[in-house]
Amino acid sequence: MKILRERIEEKKSCVCVGLDPVIENFPQEIRESGASVEEQLVAFAEGVIESTEPYIAAIKPQIAFFEQYGLEGLSALKRIVRKIHEKDLFLVMDAKRGDIGSTATAYAKAFFTPGGDFYSHALTVNGYLGSDGILPFLEAARAERGHVFVLVKTSNPSSSELQNLLVGEVPIYEHMAGLLNSMEAQGDTLGAVVGATHPSELHRLRELMPQRIFLIPGYGAQGGKAEDLRGALDGRALVNSSRGILYAYKKSGLPWRQACEKAAKDMKEDLHAAR
Amino acid sequence: MKILRERIEEKKSCVCVGLDPVIENFPQEIRESGASVEEQLVAFAEGVIESTEPYIAAIKPQIAFFEQYGLEGLSALKRIVRKIHEKDLFLVMDAKRGDIGSTATAYAKAFFTPGGDFYSHALTVNGYLGSDGILPFLEAARAERGHVFVLVKTSNPSSSELQNLLVGEVPIYEHMAGLLNSMEAQGDTLGAVVGATHPSELHRLRELMPQRIFLIPGYGAQGGKAEDLRGALDGRALVNSSRGILYAYKKSGLPWRQACEKAAKDMKEDLHAAR
Repeated sequence: MKILRERIEEKKSCVCVGLDPVIENFPQEIRESGASVEEQLVAFAEGVIESTEPYIAAIKPQIAFFEQYGLEGLSALKRIVRKIHEKDLFLVMDAKRGDIGSTATAYAKAFFTPGGDFYSHALTVNGYLGSDGILPFLEAARAERGHVFVLVKTSNPSSSELQNLLVGEVPIYEHMAGLLNSMEAQGDTLGAVVGATHPSELHRLRELMPQRIFLIPGYGAQGGKAEDLRGALDGRALVNSSRGILYAYKKSGLPWRQACEKAAKDMKEDLHAAR
Repeated sequence: MKILRERIEEKKSCVCVGLDPVIENFPQEIRESGASVEEQLVAFAEGVIESTEPYIAAIKPQIAFFEQYGLEGLSALKRIVRKIHEKDLFLVMDAKRGDIGSTATAYAKAFFTPGGDFYSHALTVNGYLGSDGILPFLEAARAERGHVFVLVKTSNPSSSELQNLLVGEVPIYEHMAGLLNSMEAQGDTLGAVVGATHPSELHRLRELMPQRIFLIPGYGAQGGKAEDLRGALDGRALVNSSRGILYAYKKSGLPWRQACEKAAKDMKEDLHAAR
Protein backbone atom coordinates (compact mmCIF):
# COMPACT_ATOMS: atom_id res chain seq x y z
CA MET A 1 0.00 0.00 0.00
CA LYS A 2 1.22 3.45 -0.83
CA ILE A 3 1.20 5.91 2.00
CA LEU A 4 -0.77 9.08 1.63
CA ARG A 5 2.13 11.36 0.70
CA GLU A 6 2.98 9.07 -2.21
CA ARG A 7 -0.64 9.17 -3.38
CA ILE A 8 -0.74 12.96 -3.26
CA GLU A 9 2.50 13.09 -5.27
CA GLU A 10 1.38 10.50 -7.80
CA LYS A 11 -2.04 12.02 -8.43
CA LYS A 12 -0.61 15.56 -8.30
CA SER A 13 -3.69 16.35 -6.29
CA CYS A 14 -4.52 17.00 -2.65
CA VAL A 15 -8.27 16.76 -3.24
CA CYS A 16 -10.31 14.53 -0.96
CA VAL A 17 -13.95 13.94 -1.86
CA GLY A 18 -16.20 13.61 1.14
CA LEU A 19 -18.95 11.06 0.66
CA ASP A 20 -21.92 12.46 2.65
CA PRO A 21 -24.95 10.89 0.97
CA VAL A 22 -28.37 12.44 1.57
CA ILE A 23 -30.95 10.76 -0.64
CA GLU A 24 -33.14 13.89 -0.88
CA ASN A 25 -30.22 15.55 -2.65
CA PHE A 26 -29.57 12.70 -5.10
CA PRO A 27 -30.18 13.28 -8.82
CA GLN A 28 -33.64 12.41 -10.01
CA GLU A 29 -32.52 9.41 -12.07
CA ILE A 30 -31.41 7.68 -8.84
CA ARG A 31 -34.18 8.90 -6.55
CA GLU A 32 -36.87 7.81 -9.00
CA SER A 33 -35.24 4.54 -10.01
CA GLY A 34 -37.40 2.53 -7.64
CA ALA A 35 -34.24 0.94 -6.21
CA SER A 36 -33.82 0.24 -2.48
CA VAL A 37 -32.05 2.72 -0.20
CA GLU A 38 -28.97 0.48 -0.23
CA GLU A 39 -28.89 0.31 -4.03
CA GLN A 40 -29.39 4.07 -4.34
CA LEU A 41 -26.50 4.74 -1.95
CA VAL A 42 -24.23 2.38 -3.85
CA ALA A 43 -25.22 3.76 -7.27
CA PHE A 44 -24.59 7.35 -6.17
CA ALA A 45 -21.22 6.51 -4.59
CA GLU A 46 -20.12 4.61 -7.70
CA GLY A 47 -20.98 7.59 -9.87
CA VAL A 48 -19.03 9.92 -7.60
CA ILE A 49 -16.01 7.63 -7.41
CA GLU A 50 -15.82 6.98 -11.14
CA SER A 51 -16.32 10.58 -12.20
CA THR A 52 -13.89 12.15 -9.72
CA GLU A 53 -11.21 9.43 -9.59
CA PRO A 54 -8.66 11.06 -11.97
CA TYR A 55 -8.58 14.27 -9.95
CA ILE A 56 -8.53 13.13 -6.34
CA ALA A 57 -5.98 11.74 -3.90
CA ALA A 58 -8.50 10.25 -1.51
CA ILE A 59 -12.13 9.61 -0.75
CA LYS A 60 -13.68 10.16 2.67
CA PRO A 61 -16.96 8.44 3.52
CA GLN A 62 -18.63 10.13 6.50
CA ILE A 63 -20.08 7.19 8.39
CA ALA A 64 -22.93 9.25 9.94
CA PHE A 65 -24.55 9.61 6.54
CA PHE A 66 -24.69 5.83 6.19
CA GLU A 67 -25.63 5.16 9.81
CA GLN A 68 -28.68 7.42 9.39
CA TYR A 69 -30.12 4.77 7.06
CA GLY A 70 -29.60 2.02 9.64
CA LEU A 71 -28.22 -1.39 8.76
CA GLU A 72 -29.12 -0.90 5.12
CA GLY A 73 -26.92 2.20 4.98
CA LEU A 74 -24.03 0.34 6.60
CA SER A 75 -24.49 -2.55 4.20
CA ALA A 76 -24.13 -0.01 1.37
CA LEU A 77 -21.01 1.38 3.06
CA LYS A 78 -19.48 -2.10 3.14
CA ARG A 79 -19.99 -2.44 -0.61
CA ILE A 80 -18.64 1.06 -1.25
CA VAL A 81 -15.55 0.35 0.85
CA ARG A 82 -14.88 -2.70 -1.33
CA LYS A 83 -15.35 -0.59 -4.44
CA ILE A 84 -12.88 2.04 -3.21
CA HIS A 85 -10.25 -0.65 -2.58
CA GLU A 86 -10.87 -2.22 -5.98
CA LYS A 87 -10.18 1.18 -7.54
CA ASP A 88 -6.98 1.41 -5.45
CA LEU A 89 -8.09 4.75 -4.01
CA PHE A 90 -7.01 6.01 -0.60
CA LEU A 91 -9.85 5.63 1.91
CA VAL A 92 -10.24 7.99 4.87
CA MET A 93 -13.10 6.91 7.12
CA ASP A 94 -14.55 9.96 8.81
CA ALA A 95 -15.91 8.49 12.02
CA LYS A 96 -14.38 10.75 14.71
CA ARG A 97 -14.13 7.84 17.10
CA GLY A 98 -12.65 8.30 20.55
CA ASP A 99 -13.04 6.30 23.74
CA ILE A 100 -11.21 4.67 26.64
CA GLY A 101 -8.37 2.31 25.71
CA SER A 102 -10.24 -1.01 25.60
CA THR A 103 -13.03 0.50 23.49
CA ALA A 104 -10.61 2.34 21.22
CA THR A 105 -8.97 -1.04 20.58
CA ALA A 106 -12.32 -2.42 19.39
CA TYR A 107 -12.85 0.58 17.10
CA ALA A 108 -9.29 0.21 15.76
CA LYS A 109 -10.07 -3.41 14.94
CA ALA A 110 -13.23 -2.30 13.09
CA PHE A 111 -11.40 0.12 10.82
CA PHE A 112 -7.81 -1.13 10.51
CA THR A 113 -8.28 -4.87 9.97
CA PRO A 114 -7.33 -5.60 6.33
CA GLY A 115 -10.23 -7.22 4.55
CA GLY A 116 -12.67 -6.07 7.23
CA ASP A 117 -16.05 -4.70 6.16
CA PHE A 118 -15.02 -1.13 6.97
CA TYR A 119 -11.27 -1.41 6.36
CA SER A 120 -9.78 2.06 5.92
CA HIS A 121 -6.36 3.53 5.21
CA ALA A 122 -7.04 6.36 7.63
CA LEU A 123 -9.50 7.22 10.37
CA THR A 124 -10.51 10.47 12.06
CA VAL A 125 -10.28 10.38 15.87
CA ASN A 126 -11.46 12.69 18.66
CA GLY A 127 -8.73 13.19 21.27
CA TYR A 128 -10.80 14.62 24.16
CA LEU A 129 -10.01 11.48 26.18
CA GLY A 130 -6.23 11.98 25.90
CA SER A 131 -3.42 9.71 24.75
CA ASP A 132 -4.77 6.35 25.92
CA GLY A 133 -7.81 6.93 23.69
CA ILE A 134 -5.53 7.63 20.69
CA LEU A 135 -2.80 5.04 21.17
CA PRO A 136 -4.74 1.91 20.06
CA PHE A 137 -5.58 3.66 16.77
CA LEU A 138 -1.97 4.76 16.31
CA GLU A 139 -0.65 1.24 16.84
CA ALA A 140 -3.18 -0.36 14.52
CA ALA A 141 -2.62 2.24 11.81
CA ARG A 142 1.16 1.95 12.05
CA ALA A 143 0.98 -1.81 11.53
CA GLU A 144 -0.81 -1.16 8.21
CA ARG A 145 1.10 1.98 7.18
CA GLY A 146 -2.17 3.83 7.66
CA HIS A 147 -2.93 7.18 9.24
CA VAL A 148 -4.89 8.56 12.18
CA PHE A 149 -6.22 12.11 11.88
CA VAL A 150 -6.89 13.58 15.31
CA LEU A 151 -9.25 16.57 15.58
CA VAL A 152 -7.16 19.61 16.49
CA LYS A 153 -9.11 22.62 15.21
CA THR A 154 -12.41 21.80 13.55
CA SER A 155 -14.09 23.72 10.72
CA ASN A 156 -17.48 24.42 12.35
CA PRO A 157 -18.60 27.84 13.63
CA SER A 158 -18.71 26.89 17.32
CA SER A 159 -15.33 25.12 17.32
CA SER A 160 -13.83 28.05 19.24
CA GLU A 161 -16.12 27.58 22.26
CA LEU A 162 -13.85 24.89 23.65
CA GLN A 163 -10.90 24.64 21.27
CA ASN A 164 -9.86 28.30 21.56
CA LEU A 165 -10.00 28.60 25.35
CA LEU A 166 -6.60 29.75 26.60
CA VAL A 167 -4.55 27.58 28.92
CA GLY A 168 -1.98 30.06 30.11
CA GLU A 169 -1.49 31.93 26.84
CA VAL A 170 -1.93 28.92 24.63
CA PRO A 171 -5.26 27.81 23.11
CA ILE A 172 -6.47 24.28 23.67
CA TYR A 173 -6.04 23.33 20.01
CA GLU A 174 -2.30 24.02 20.37
CA HIS A 175 -2.23 21.79 23.43
CA MET A 176 -3.84 19.08 21.32
CA ALA A 177 -1.08 19.61 18.74
CA GLY A 178 1.47 19.29 21.56
CA LEU A 179 -0.15 16.05 22.69
CA LEU A 180 0.23 14.62 19.18
CA ASN A 181 3.85 15.77 19.00
CA SER A 182 4.54 14.09 22.33
CA MET A 183 3.03 10.81 21.07
CA GLU A 184 4.89 10.67 17.76
CA ALA A 185 7.73 13.00 16.83
CA GLN A 186 7.29 12.62 13.07
CA GLY A 187 3.97 12.94 11.32
CA ASP A 188 4.09 9.67 9.40
CA THR A 189 1.13 8.03 11.10
CA LEU A 190 -0.47 10.64 13.32
CA GLY A 191 -2.09 13.43 11.33
CA ALA A 192 -4.27 16.36 12.35
CA VAL A 193 -7.70 17.62 11.32
CA VAL A 194 -7.51 21.39 10.89
CA GLY A 195 -10.40 23.29 9.31
CA ALA A 196 -9.93 25.42 6.17
CA THR A 197 -12.33 27.92 7.71
CA HIS A 198 -9.80 29.21 10.26
CA PRO A 199 -6.75 30.25 8.18
CA SER A 200 -4.69 31.91 10.92
CA GLU A 201 -5.06 28.90 13.22
CA LEU A 202 -4.21 26.64 10.29
CA HIS A 203 -0.94 28.44 9.56
CA ARG A 204 0.02 28.50 13.23
CA LEU A 205 -0.65 24.75 13.50
CA ARG A 206 1.43 24.12 10.37
CA GLU A 207 4.35 25.83 12.13
CA LEU A 208 3.83 23.71 15.23
CA MET A 209 3.52 20.45 13.27
CA PRO A 210 5.65 20.91 10.13
CA GLN A 211 5.95 17.20 9.32
CA ARG A 212 2.45 16.09 10.17
CA ILE A 213 -0.16 15.27 7.51
CA PHE A 214 -3.20 17.55 7.70
CA LEU A 215 -6.73 16.66 6.76
CA ILE A 216 -8.32 20.02 5.97
CA PRO A 217 -12.13 20.00 5.80
CA GLY A 218 -14.30 23.02 5.18
CA TYR A 219 -13.27 23.93 1.61
CA GLY A 220 -16.19 24.95 -0.60
CA ALA A 221 -19.68 24.69 0.89
CA GLN A 222 -18.40 25.52 4.41
CA GLY A 223 -16.60 28.63 3.11
CA GLY A 224 -12.88 27.70 3.09
CA LYS A 225 -10.91 29.14 0.13
CA ALA A 226 -7.75 27.99 -1.65
CA GLU A 227 -5.96 31.32 -1.13
CA ASP A 228 -6.37 30.89 2.64
CA LEU A 229 -4.51 27.59 2.41
CA ARG A 230 -1.45 29.01 0.65
CA GLY A 231 1.66 27.77 2.42
CA ALA A 232 -0.12 24.86 4.07
CA LEU A 233 -0.39 22.81 0.85
CA ASP A 234 3.06 21.29 0.88
CA GLY A 235 2.39 17.72 -0.17
CA ARG A 236 1.37 16.86 3.38
CA ALA A 237 -2.19 18.09 3.23
CA LEU A 238 -5.45 16.62 2.04
CA VAL A 239 -8.22 19.16 1.40
CA ASN A 240 -11.77 17.90 1.64
CA SER A 241 -14.94 19.01 -0.07
CA SER A 242 -18.17 17.07 0.29
CA ARG A 243 -21.37 18.88 -0.70
CA GLY A 244 -19.51 21.16 -3.14
CA ILE A 245 -18.62 18.14 -5.29
CA LEU A 246 -21.43 15.67 -4.59
CA TYR A 247 -24.29 18.01 -5.36
CA ALA A 248 -22.55 20.29 -7.88
CA TYR A 249 -25.20 19.34 -10.45
CA LYS A 250 -27.74 21.47 -8.61
CA LYS A 251 -25.86 24.65 -9.41
CA SER A 252 -24.05 23.84 -12.63
CA GLY A 253 -26.91 22.52 -14.74
CA LEU A 254 -24.63 19.72 -16.00
CA PRO A 255 -25.63 16.04 -15.83
CA TRP A 256 -24.70 14.94 -12.29
CA ARG A 257 -21.65 12.78 -13.04
CA GLN A 258 -20.18 15.49 -15.27
CA ALA A 259 -20.90 18.07 -12.59
CA CYS A 260 -18.99 15.95 -10.02
CA GLU A 261 -16.11 15.54 -12.44
CA LYS A 262 -15.92 19.24 -13.19
CA ALA A 263 -16.14 20.23 -9.52
CA ALA A 264 -13.30 17.84 -8.58
CA LYS A 265 -11.16 19.00 -11.53
CA ASP A 266 -11.78 22.68 -10.73
CA MET A 267 -10.92 22.10 -7.08
CA LYS A 268 -7.69 20.31 -8.02
CA GLU A 269 -6.65 23.22 -10.23
CA ASP A 270 -7.74 25.83 -7.71
CA LEU A 271 -5.61 24.21 -5.01
CA HIS A 272 -2.69 23.61 -7.39
CA ALA A 273 -2.62 27.31 -8.23
CA ALA A 274 -2.47 28.17 -4.51
CA ARG A 275 0.31 25.71 -3.77
CA MET B 1 -41.95 6.36 27.25
CA LYS B 2 -40.83 6.89 30.82
CA ILE B 3 -37.92 9.24 31.25
CA LEU B 4 -34.80 8.00 32.95
CA ARG B 5 -35.51 9.44 36.39
CA GLU B 6 -38.82 7.60 36.48
CA ARG B 7 -37.08 4.36 35.52
CA ILE B 8 -34.49 4.77 38.26
CA GLU B 9 -37.27 5.39 40.77
CA GLU B 10 -39.42 2.51 39.56
CA LYS B 11 -36.61 -0.05 39.50
CA LYS B 12 -35.11 1.34 42.72
CA SER B 13 -31.81 0.92 40.97
CA CYS B 14 -29.26 3.16 39.30
CA VAL B 15 -27.40 0.24 37.75
CA CYS B 16 -26.58 0.38 34.05
CA VAL B 17 -25.15 -2.74 32.44
CA GLY B 18 -22.65 -2.00 29.72
CA LEU B 19 -22.84 -4.42 26.82
CA ASP B 20 -19.24 -4.72 25.57
CA PRO B 21 -19.15 -8.12 23.86
CA VAL B 22 -15.78 -9.77 23.21
CA ILE B 23 -16.28 -13.27 21.90
CA GLU B 24 -13.02 -14.57 23.39
CA ASN B 25 -14.51 -13.84 26.82
CA PHE B 26 -17.85 -15.51 26.16
CA PRO B 27 -18.76 -18.63 28.14
CA GLN B 28 -17.72 -21.87 26.53
CA GLU B 29 -21.31 -22.97 25.80
CA ILE B 30 -21.67 -20.01 23.42
CA ARG B 31 -18.16 -19.99 21.98
CA GLU B 32 -18.30 -23.70 21.16
CA SER B 33 -21.90 -23.72 19.93
CA GLY B 34 -20.84 -23.58 16.29
CA ALA B 35 -23.17 -20.58 15.81
CA SER B 36 -22.24 -17.59 13.64
CA VAL B 37 -20.68 -14.48 15.16
CA GLU B 38 -24.04 -12.72 14.87
CA GLU B 39 -25.89 -15.53 16.64
CA GLN B 40 -23.27 -15.70 19.39
CA LEU B 41 -23.54 -11.95 20.00
CA VAL B 42 -27.32 -12.13 20.18
CA ALA B 43 -27.32 -15.20 22.45
CA PHE B 44 -24.88 -13.59 24.86
CA ALA B 45 -26.79 -10.30 24.96
CA GLU B 46 -30.09 -12.09 25.55
CA GLY B 47 -28.59 -13.99 28.47
CA VAL B 48 -27.23 -10.76 29.98
CA ILE B 49 -30.50 -8.87 29.51
CA GLU B 50 -32.70 -11.61 30.94
CA SER B 51 -30.52 -12.37 33.93
CA THR B 52 -29.87 -8.76 34.99
CA GLU B 53 -33.21 -7.18 34.07
CA PRO B 54 -34.78 -7.14 37.58
CA TYR B 55 -31.83 -5.24 39.04
CA ILE B 56 -31.00 -2.63 36.44
CA ALA B 57 -32.37 0.72 35.35
CA ALA B 58 -30.74 0.71 31.92
CA ILE B 59 -28.58 -1.16 29.45
CA LYS B 60 -25.77 0.44 27.49
CA PRO B 61 -24.49 -1.24 24.33
CA GLN B 62 -21.05 0.08 23.40
CA ILE B 63 -21.24 0.24 19.63
CA ALA B 64 -17.48 -0.26 19.13
CA PHE B 65 -17.74 -3.83 20.36
CA PHE B 66 -20.30 -4.56 17.64
CA GLU B 67 -18.55 -2.54 14.92
CA GLN B 68 -15.39 -4.62 15.48
CA TYR B 69 -17.29 -7.57 13.99
CA GLY B 70 -18.26 -5.59 10.89
CA LEU B 71 -21.72 -5.68 9.39
CA GLU B 72 -22.46 -8.96 11.15
CA GLY B 73 -21.86 -7.30 14.51
CA LEU B 74 -24.11 -4.38 13.61
CA SER B 75 -26.79 -6.77 12.42
CA ALA B 76 -26.61 -8.40 15.87
CA LEU B 77 -26.87 -4.95 17.46
CA LYS B 78 -30.03 -4.23 15.50
CA ARG B 79 -31.62 -7.42 16.85
CA ILE B 80 -30.43 -6.66 20.39
CA VAL B 81 -31.85 -3.13 20.20
CA ARG B 82 -35.21 -4.63 19.29
CA LYS B 83 -34.94 -7.07 22.19
CA ILE B 84 -34.19 -4.26 24.66
CA HIS B 85 -37.26 -2.33 23.50
CA GLU B 86 -39.42 -5.46 23.72
CA LYS B 87 -38.33 -5.81 27.34
CA ASP B 88 -39.18 -2.14 27.91
CA LEU B 89 -35.68 -1.45 29.21
CA PHE B 90 -34.01 1.95 28.97
CA LEU B 91 -31.40 1.92 26.18
CA VAL B 92 -28.31 4.14 26.33
CA MET B 93 -26.27 3.84 23.14
CA ASP B 94 -22.63 4.45 23.95
CA ALA B 95 -21.33 5.82 20.66
CA LYS B 96 -19.59 9.06 21.74
CA ARG B 97 -20.58 10.74 18.49
CA GLY B 98 -19.64 14.32 17.81
CA ASP B 99 -19.29 16.25 14.56
CA ILE B 100 -20.19 19.46 12.75
CA GLY B 101 -23.89 20.39 12.68
CA SER B 102 -24.96 18.74 9.42
CA THR B 103 -23.20 15.50 10.36
CA ALA B 104 -24.49 15.56 13.93
CA THR B 105 -27.98 15.81 12.43
CA ALA B 106 -27.37 12.59 10.49
CA TYR B 107 -26.11 10.82 13.64
CA ALA B 108 -29.12 12.12 15.58
CA LYS B 109 -31.38 10.62 12.93
CA ALA B 110 -29.54 7.29 13.25
CA PHE B 111 -30.09 7.01 17.00
CA PHE B 112 -33.24 9.01 17.80
CA THR B 113 -35.65 7.91 15.06
CA PRO B 114 -38.32 5.74 16.73
CA GLY B 115 -38.40 2.34 15.10
CA GLY B 116 -34.97 2.86 13.55
CA ASP B 117 -32.48 0.00 13.60
CA PHE B 118 -30.41 1.65 16.34
CA TYR B 119 -33.16 3.62 18.10
CA SER B 120 -32.01 4.60 21.57
CA HIS B 121 -33.44 6.48 24.54
CA ALA B 122 -30.10 8.13 25.18
CA LEU B 123 -26.80 8.64 23.39
CA THR B 124 -23.31 9.58 24.54
CA VAL B 125 -21.82 12.58 22.71
CA ASN B 126 -18.34 14.14 22.54
CA GLY B 127 -18.51 17.93 22.86
CA TYR B 128 -15.03 18.87 21.59
CA LEU B 129 -16.67 20.60 18.60
CA GLY B 130 -18.78 22.91 20.79
CA SER B 131 -22.49 23.65 20.90
CA ASP B 132 -23.33 23.30 17.22
CA GLY B 133 -22.10 19.70 17.39
CA ILE B 134 -24.36 19.03 20.41
CA LEU B 135 -27.51 20.91 19.44
CA PRO B 136 -28.87 18.49 16.77
CA PHE B 137 -28.68 15.65 19.34
CA LEU B 138 -30.35 17.78 21.98
CA GLU B 139 -33.24 18.68 19.67
CA ALA B 140 -33.77 15.13 18.48
CA ALA B 141 -33.62 13.72 22.02
CA ARG B 142 -36.01 16.35 23.35
CA ALA B 143 -38.60 15.46 20.71
CA GLU B 144 -38.55 11.86 22.03
CA ARG B 145 -38.13 12.67 25.74
CA GLY B 146 -34.71 11.08 25.42
CA HIS B 147 -31.35 12.09 26.84
CA VAL B 148 -27.95 13.16 25.56
CA PHE B 149 -24.94 12.44 27.76
CA VAL B 150 -22.04 14.72 26.89
CA LEU B 151 -18.53 13.67 27.95
CA VAL B 152 -17.41 16.02 30.69
CA LYS B 153 -14.82 14.10 32.73
CA THR B 154 -14.07 10.61 31.44
CA SER B 155 -13.04 7.58 33.51
CA ASN B 156 -9.80 6.65 31.73
CA PRO B 157 -6.30 7.23 33.19
CA SER B 158 -5.22 9.83 30.60
CA SER B 159 -8.44 11.86 30.79
CA SER B 160 -6.59 14.57 32.71
CA GLU B 161 -4.15 15.29 29.85
CA LEU B 162 -6.68 17.54 28.17
CA GLN B 163 -9.70 17.67 30.47
CA ASN B 164 -7.81 18.93 33.53
CA LEU B 165 -5.84 21.71 31.82
CA LEU B 166 -6.59 24.98 33.59
CA VAL B 167 -8.24 27.84 31.74
CA GLY B 168 -7.65 30.67 34.15
CA GLU B 169 -8.18 28.73 37.37
CA VAL B 170 -10.88 26.46 36.00
CA PRO B 171 -10.25 23.04 34.46
CA ILE B 172 -11.57 22.32 30.98
CA TYR B 173 -14.08 19.77 32.26
CA GLU B 174 -15.75 22.55 34.27
CA HIS B 175 -15.89 24.67 31.12
CA MET B 176 -17.63 21.76 29.42
CA ALA B 177 -20.12 21.69 32.31
CA GLY B 178 -20.64 25.43 31.82
CA LEU B 179 -21.26 24.90 28.12
CA LEU B 180 -23.98 22.37 28.94
CA ASN B 181 -25.52 24.72 31.50
CA SER B 182 -25.56 27.50 28.91
CA MET B 183 -27.34 25.23 26.41
CA GLU B 184 -30.05 23.95 28.76
CA ALA B 185 -30.67 25.34 32.21
CA GLN B 186 -32.33 22.21 33.56
CA GLY B 187 -30.87 18.75 33.19
CA ASP B 188 -33.94 17.08 31.75
CA THR B 189 -32.46 16.23 28.37
CA LEU B 190 -28.78 17.11 28.51
CA GLY B 191 -26.85 14.85 30.86
CA ALA B 192 -23.15 14.48 31.59
CA VAL B 193 -20.68 11.60 31.51
CA VAL B 194 -18.52 11.78 34.62
CA GLY B 195 -16.22 8.90 35.53
CA ALA B 196 -16.51 7.08 38.88
CA THR B 197 -12.73 6.90 38.94
CA HIS B 198 -12.30 10.60 39.77
CA PRO B 199 -14.41 11.14 42.93
CA SER B 200 -13.35 14.72 43.74
CA GLU B 201 -14.07 15.89 40.19
CA LEU B 202 -17.39 14.01 40.31
CA HIS B 203 -18.51 15.79 43.47
CA ARG B 204 -17.42 19.17 42.15
CA LEU B 205 -19.36 18.55 38.93
CA ARG B 206 -22.44 17.51 40.90
CA GLU B 207 -22.31 20.92 42.64
CA LEU B 208 -22.01 22.69 39.28
CA MET B 209 -24.81 20.67 37.66
CA PRO B 210 -27.21 19.77 40.50
CA GLN B 211 -30.18 18.99 38.25
CA ARG B 212 -28.40 17.22 35.44
CA ILE B 213 -28.52 13.43 34.98
CA PHE B 214 -25.09 11.83 35.24
CA LEU B 215 -23.93 8.72 33.46
CA ILE B 216 -21.12 7.43 35.65
CA PRO B 217 -18.89 4.81 34.02
CA GLY B 218 -15.85 3.23 35.63
CA TYR B 219 -17.48 1.32 38.52
CA GLY B 220 -16.02 -2.14 39.06
CA ALA B 221 -13.39 -3.34 36.59
CA GLN B 222 -12.06 0.21 36.07
CA GLY B 223 -11.70 0.76 39.82
CA GLY B 224 -14.61 3.04 40.78
CA LYS B 225 -16.17 2.29 44.20
CA ALA B 226 -19.65 2.92 45.63
CA GLU B 227 -18.33 4.82 48.66
CA ASP B 228 -16.67 7.32 46.27
CA LEU B 229 -20.07 8.03 44.75
CA ARG B 230 -21.79 8.85 48.06
CA GLY B 231 -23.72 12.09 47.64
CA ALA B 232 -23.81 11.84 43.85
CA LEU B 233 -26.42 9.05 43.79
CA ASP B 234 -29.49 11.19 44.18
CA GLY B 235 -31.89 9.60 41.70
CA ARG B 236 -30.25 11.51 38.88
CA ALA B 237 -27.34 9.19 38.27
CA LEU B 238 -26.85 6.03 36.31
CA VAL B 239 -23.78 4.00 37.29
CA ASN B 240 -22.35 1.71 34.65
CA SER B 241 -20.43 -1.53 34.91
CA SER B 242 -19.56 -3.58 31.85
CA ARG B 243 -16.87 -6.24 32.27
CA GLY B 244 -17.60 -6.62 36.01
CA ILE B 245 -21.07 -7.94 35.19
CA LEU B 246 -20.66 -9.52 31.74
CA TYR B 247 -17.72 -11.72 32.61
CA ALA B 248 -18.42 -12.21 36.32
CA TYR B 249 -18.58 -15.97 35.69
CA LYS B 250 -14.80 -16.06 35.26
CA LYS B 251 -14.25 -15.10 38.88
CA SER B 252 -17.32 -16.41 40.65
CA GLY B 253 -17.37 -19.99 39.43
CA LEU B 254 -21.15 -19.73 38.97
CA PRO B 255 -22.87 -20.62 35.67
CA TRP B 256 -22.59 -17.48 33.53
CA ARG B 257 -26.18 -16.26 33.64
CA GLN B 258 -26.31 -16.70 37.40
CA ALA B 259 -22.98 -14.90 37.69
CA CYS B 260 -24.40 -11.93 35.69
CA GLU B 261 -27.50 -11.88 37.85
CA LYS B 262 -25.54 -11.97 41.09
CA ALA B 263 -23.12 -9.26 39.92
CA ALA B 264 -26.00 -6.94 38.93
CA LYS B 265 -27.85 -7.62 42.21
CA ASP B 266 -24.72 -7.06 44.28
CA MET B 267 -24.00 -3.82 42.44
CA LYS B 268 -27.55 -2.59 43.00
CA GLU B 269 -27.28 -3.27 46.74
CA ASP B 270 -23.78 -1.85 46.97
CA LEU B 271 -24.93 1.41 45.37
CA HIS B 272 -28.15 1.49 47.39
CA ALA B 273 -26.15 1.28 50.61
CA ALA B 274 -24.02 4.22 49.49
CA ARG B 275 -26.98 6.35 48.53
